[in-house]
Amino acid sequence: MAKEKKVQQITDMEEDFAQWYTDICLKAELVDYASVKGFMILRPYGYAIWENIQRLMDAKFKETGHENVAMPVLIPESLLKKEGELVNGFAPEVAWVTMGGSEKLEERLALRPTSETMFCDHWAHVLHSYRELPMLYNQWCSVVRWEKTTRPFLRSREFWWQEGHTIHETAEEAQRETEQQLNCYADFCENVLAMPVVRGRKTDKEKFAGAEATYTIECMMKDHKALQSATSHYFGDKFSRAYGVTFTGRDNTLQYPFQTSWGSTTRLIGAVIMTHGDNSGLVLPPQIAPVQIIVVPVAQHKPGVVEGAQVLCDRLKAAGFRAKIDLSDNSLGWKCAQYEMKGVPLRVEMGPRDMENGQCVMVRRNDGEKTFVRLEELEAEAGRQLEAVQTGLYETARRNLEEHTYAARTLEEAKQLQKEKGGFIKTMWCGDEACELKMKEEAGMSSRCMPFAQEQISDVCPICGKPAKTMVVWGVAY
Amino acid sequence: MAKEKKVQQITDMEEDFAQWYTDICLKAELVDYASVKGFMILRPYGYAIWENIQRLMDAKFKETGHENVAMPVLIPESLLKKEGELVNGFAPEVAWVTMGGSEKLEERLALRPTSETMFCDHWAHVLHSYRELPMLYNQWCSVVRWEKTTRPFLRSREFWWQEGHTIHETAEEAQRETEQQLNCYADFCENVLAMPVVRGRKTDKEKFAGAEATYTIECMMKDHKALQSATSHYFGDKFSRAYGVTFTGRDNTLQYPFQTSWGSTTRLIGAVIMTHGDNSGLVLPPQIAPVQIIVVPVAQHKPGVVEGAQVLCDRLKAAGFRAKIDLSDNSLGWKCAQYEMKGVPLRVEMGPRDMENGQCVMVRRNDGEKTFVRLEELEAEAGRQLEAVQTGLYETARRNLEEHTYAARTLEEAKQLQKEKGGFIKTMWCGDEACELKMKEEAGMSSRCMPFAQEQISDVCPICGKPAKTMVVWGVAY
Repeated sequence: MAKEKKVQQITDMEEDFAQWYTDICLKAELVDYASVKGFMILRPYGYAIWENIQRLMDAKFKETGHENVAMPVLIPESLLKKEGELVNGFAPEVAWVTMGGSEKLEERLALRPTSETMFCDHWAHVLHSYRELPMLYNQWCSVVRWEKTTRPFLRSREFWWQEGHTIHETAEEAQRETEQQLNCYADFCENVLAMPVVRGRKTDKEKFAGAEATYTIECMMKDHKALQSATSHYFGDKFSRAYGVTFTGRDNTLQYPFQTSWGSTTRLIGAVIMTHGDNSGLVLPPQIAPVQIIVVPVAQHKPGVVEGAQVLCDRLKAAGFRAKIDLSDNSLGWKCAQYEMKGVPLRVEMGPRDMENGQCVMVRRNDGEKTFVRLEELEAEAGRQLEAVQTGLYETARRNLEEHTYAARTLEEAKQLQKEKGGFIKTMWCGDEACELKMKEEAGMSSRCMPFAQEQISDVCPICGKPAKTMVVWGVAY
Repeated sequence: MAKEKKVQQITDMEEDFAQWYTDICLKAELVDYASVKGFMILRPYGYAIWENIQRLMDAKFKETGHENVAMPVLIPESLLKKEGELVNGFAPEVAWVTMGGSEKLEERLALRPTSETMFCDHWAHVLHSYRELPMLYNQWCSVVRWEKTTRPFLRSREFWWQEGHTIHETAEEAQRETEQQLNCYADFCENVLAMPVVRGRKTDKEKFAGAEATYTIECMMKDHKALQSATSHYFGDKFSRAYGVTFTGRDNTLQYPFQTSWGSTTRLIGAVIMTHGDNSGLVLPPQIAPVQIIVVPVAQHKPGVVEGAQVLCDRLKAAGFRAKIDLSDNSLGWKCAQYEMKGVPLRVEMGPRDMENGQCVMVRRNDGEKTFVRLEELEAEAGRQLEAVQTGLYETARRNLEEHTYAARTLEEAKQLQKEKGGFIKTMWCGDEACELKMKEEAGMSSRCMPFAQEQISDVCPICGKPAKTMVVWGVAY
């Protein structure tokens, strides 16, 4: 029996959201499971999405003066241990190299879980004077964290990311950098990925190991759970001191620079799936779609149809769109289902009657809207339709976020809302970790962040009744 | 005492070529040594060169239908061992992960030294039909090989590379791919890196572990030693059989695809240093130079000079050149030395008298040639000058290669030539490994390749006197 490839049905997202998610990852050919447990393979289509994210994000980083570097994949244990909080945070998840060739190593080496330590070690070599500051570095690579339970994109023993690492002359400058990069992520999510975000600061309990402050963007998925989509950390001079990074300041004294780091990962692809996907499969925002427009001939055996469709595809490519044509002998139904599964934002159909009428049909992936388009309008209309996809995706996601964000004034109300509605619950908070733990215990929600956009919901912490210090957004998180 | 950064002298290349090389790597700020022995850090300037190489080469790969993917960094020992020759070739150099978090792993995992095994394992999952062939994959990543002696770019325990992996329906198609990709590398070296190459096939002794045939491009460095700059391998269906990669063929039977792999690495940067560098530092071919044109104001305290120079820089940028201006308060001499060290292909100087005369001065990095340029000619002349740098670099390297390639008819002659002249020695060869070993033993040269461009130097093998089968190029290699 010949092995044949089929477009298969995926699980209904209302029935089993987790299975629906996994189905999309596999059937849209984004990933494959590797033979090493908990690791993933990014297949061409999945990697092409990541390449688009990389290209667009990297350009943003470079606009603000960041430079890329490459650091070693292995970190000596002694180096990793110099900063206590960091190593305590990561030690349980580190994979260790203990053999090089046939020799046992004298010191075991960590497969990098994050590279603050390497950057500090390097800066300790190369930094001399305040004139060389700031150093604004970034690297694109993969990191390994030995997670217990894994899911493609969301939590994997290896994932691909960028990690920005910077050092600055003053604390203020480093703080500005931390916030600037968080806003860079937020703008990227909103403008490129069509995902609205909540920007805010993590509580001490939720912040990055070793950081003085962690800022985050939190997105809401279609199942109303939260996904932390990128973070930005301010370290003060803690790592500089631990790793002996110094420079000669303007006053000719030896000083410690102030440091930041910030990261975003292939998890963003998981966020896109769960923000925009539907029961027909993936739905991709146009800017990151490997194929933005798929041209499908209708009744392609009829004379002239293939040639006519090819002209459309060529014109769209010439206009700068990532367009592709499918001339395979698969049925029209198969093709439509296939490109819906893969989330191609716009489908252009052309059949014999369309040719006669000098038109084609455009079908938007996100809402199925069909438009008959005069051929002289092809390029202009394709641009408008892709914009409509982008706007439509953002609008739907924004409504999802707004309609599932609730304010609560008591712990009981928060529990009730979480149980009955799900989503993000906003409450005031006294700042005490005990209350944070109690919310987790009783309502099953962790603090997602203290949003920059604060509201005065009430005057007291709904958990302990003490005076409130800040508003927190709570949620069930991936 | 304040720490200050200085442009320092580098070792004379005629005195100590190895030290000269290391000096450039460090003083042009390409690399830093990492705290893990034998590992390197690619600093912003070094990584920017690699990014340019990646961007240009990746575009070439994509033009011929290749797609990027990402494979796991770890390979289970059992998977690595399925193909005997490959694992025998790499086993002594593999770094092993034996601990994940605090748990000892049941099976140790190799930090990938190369990924044939992972690609095969993946293809065994996803390949079904001949319709899906060829699969033309590539990945950009780093690999780890536990080398004993290391040098930046040339031999390092971790290096960055691309590894192409493809499978095909027929042997002929796979063979064509192997040669196509070798020619892609050769053209890249010649047209982008300005390095002439010798294209050919490796002897069985020198081929890749597990390959049926390995093709190579060999470049000659300024010290007349050989550098293998990229390789392309044909595997037949050996790995497919070992890893159970099958597809349903046109005749509905289960078949094994034919496979290739091909790779090039950050070693290319080492090749560029040793092909074009001089006693003032690095010399970069324009297409990979992070900064193509440096604009330096002369007597910048004089009124209008800074503004005038800035206009030049802006115009050059607007014309698409990677141009930069140095307005720091360092001396003109310091600046010139600094950008020579960093290999910037073209320097544009402008002082008060130039402004009066409506001109600037262009100085080529490779030959120091100065040209006075009317300002209205700025962009056009910059283009011509960069082309002249490219041509000049290639021409010098070509002369080096030609003038240090010798034909020998006897082993004695080969030994003599190697001893007195160095470089590439061409001889005939019977095809016997014993003769290859004898050449190594007596003349200290390994076979670099059997060039595609064959010559009939004599009729017999100069080592054993038996009938000659092919011409071989011998050399001392990095």
